[in-house]
Amino acid sequence: METAVVLLSGGLDSATVLAIAQDQGFDCLALSFRYGQNHASEIDAAAEIAAHAQVSRHVIVDIDLRVFGGSALTSDVPIPDFVELDEEEPAIPITYVPARNTIFLSYALAFAEVSKATRIFVGVNAVDYSGYPDCRPEFIAAFEEMANLATKAATADGLRMEIVAPLMDMSKGEISRLGTTLGVDYSRTVSCYDANQRGEACGRCDSCVLRRRGFEDAGLPDPTRYA
Amino acid sequence: METAVVLLSGGLDSATVLAIAQDQGFDCLALSFRYGQNHASEIDAAAEIAAHAQVSRHVIVDIDLRVFGGSALTSDVPIPDFVELDEEEPAIPITYVPARNTIFLSYALAFAEVSKATRIFVGVNAVDYSGYPDCRPEFIAAFEEMANLATKAATADGLRMEIVAPLMDMSKGEISRLGTTLGVDYSRTVSCYDANQRGEACGRCDSCVLRRRGFEDAGLPDPTRYA
Repeated sequence: METAVVLLSGGLDSATVLAIAQDQGFDCLALSFRYGQNHASEIDAAAEIAAHAQVSRHVIVDIDLRVFGGSALTSDVPIPDFVELDEEEPAIPITYVPARNTIFLSYALAFAEVSKATRIFVGVNAVDYSGYPDCRPEFIAAFEEMANLATKAATADGLRMEIVAPLMDMSKGEISRLGTTLGVDYSRTVSCYDANQRGEACGRCDSCVLRRRGFEDAGLPDPTRYA
Repeated sequence: METAVVLLSGGLDSATVLAIAQDQGFDCLALSFRYGQNHASEIDAAAEIAAHAQVSRHVIVDIDLRVFGGSALTSDVPIPDFVELDEEEPAIPITYVPARNTIFLSYALAFAEVSKATRIFVGVNAVDYSGYPDCRPEFIAAFEEMANLATKAATADGLRMEIVAPLMDMSKGEISRLGTTLGVDYSRTVSCYDANQRGEACGRCDSCVLRRRGFEDAGLPDPTRYA
């Protein structure tokens, strides 16, 4: 049984990715970050999802990205309401956190190397979040290339590392439909950028609106707990 | 005046790199990590070096790599005495910390993006440490490639990021000679993997032996404070 590290934020996407990795037969290790996000209730959601999925190990790493500043997700800047993405000229949302996915994947690489894992699963998605540079396929491919030059596992032990982004080309509707088939309980997940301490969603931010539309497109009831 | 982020461990190499970056006219931001290393006195050294060099900002980030385990530098495994590297078949030392440079550079990327810096200076060196995969030029090149796909700065604002590793092909002797020319006070630096709390070196580990040889090769007195 091969081992995989799964980045688990506690949101809809990463919960689905964990289900996909388990469905593919991987022994899964979950990795979450307390990175100074205002919506810290997603960490509680991640712990609940990991426990429910009976992963071999769930590590929550404390990293303080507030030390650098630069994002609405880690500062006092209010979370903006949803704005329709301009497909002609997509702007990067202010909820972008500088180099966040690079940092998350780097920790996943360390965890994977120590655990002799050969896969890192990540729930990035180019369709709904085309505004984030570190959610695109070319970024994931470049990270994989770098990862296979970075570690003792890859260079001395011949363990090639693959970064798997199974949601990359899926719509939110397709994701929630697949996850439901795999038994994901989306009422446990927290996607909202502005969730309260009880994990209840605001219903107005980008993440909430895209998530709600996903359930609508999939013809599924929306199990989100709104504030 | 362009801005550069300089990874500053507090050792001989990174102190030299900081001097090089300042000599090249960059406004320097220093970045250090408290990562669970046993030789934490190098952090005190980094703070002293940064203050002496009058950098614009010095950020020390707390990251706990012990959560994953896997290296003598972050565990109770005793630091081994120096062994001559087998050039035919170099083995990766047990002092290798899984994915450490990847993680350090990822944080530097975040710091650089927030600060609109266009360079990240790092003191990796392929000559003395050919055993570490993440000190090789091909790793640095792959990281730079990835970094330029990862950030808003690179993809939307057109700020190309360059990872500068000026010591890559230099011997320890050449490094200490150059640093001395640039006014680096090596008595402030701590390179030892097993330094005590006062920053005094063991004189026996890989890092100590290579450093002492460097001063010898350069024909310089060794200013290291030994225990």
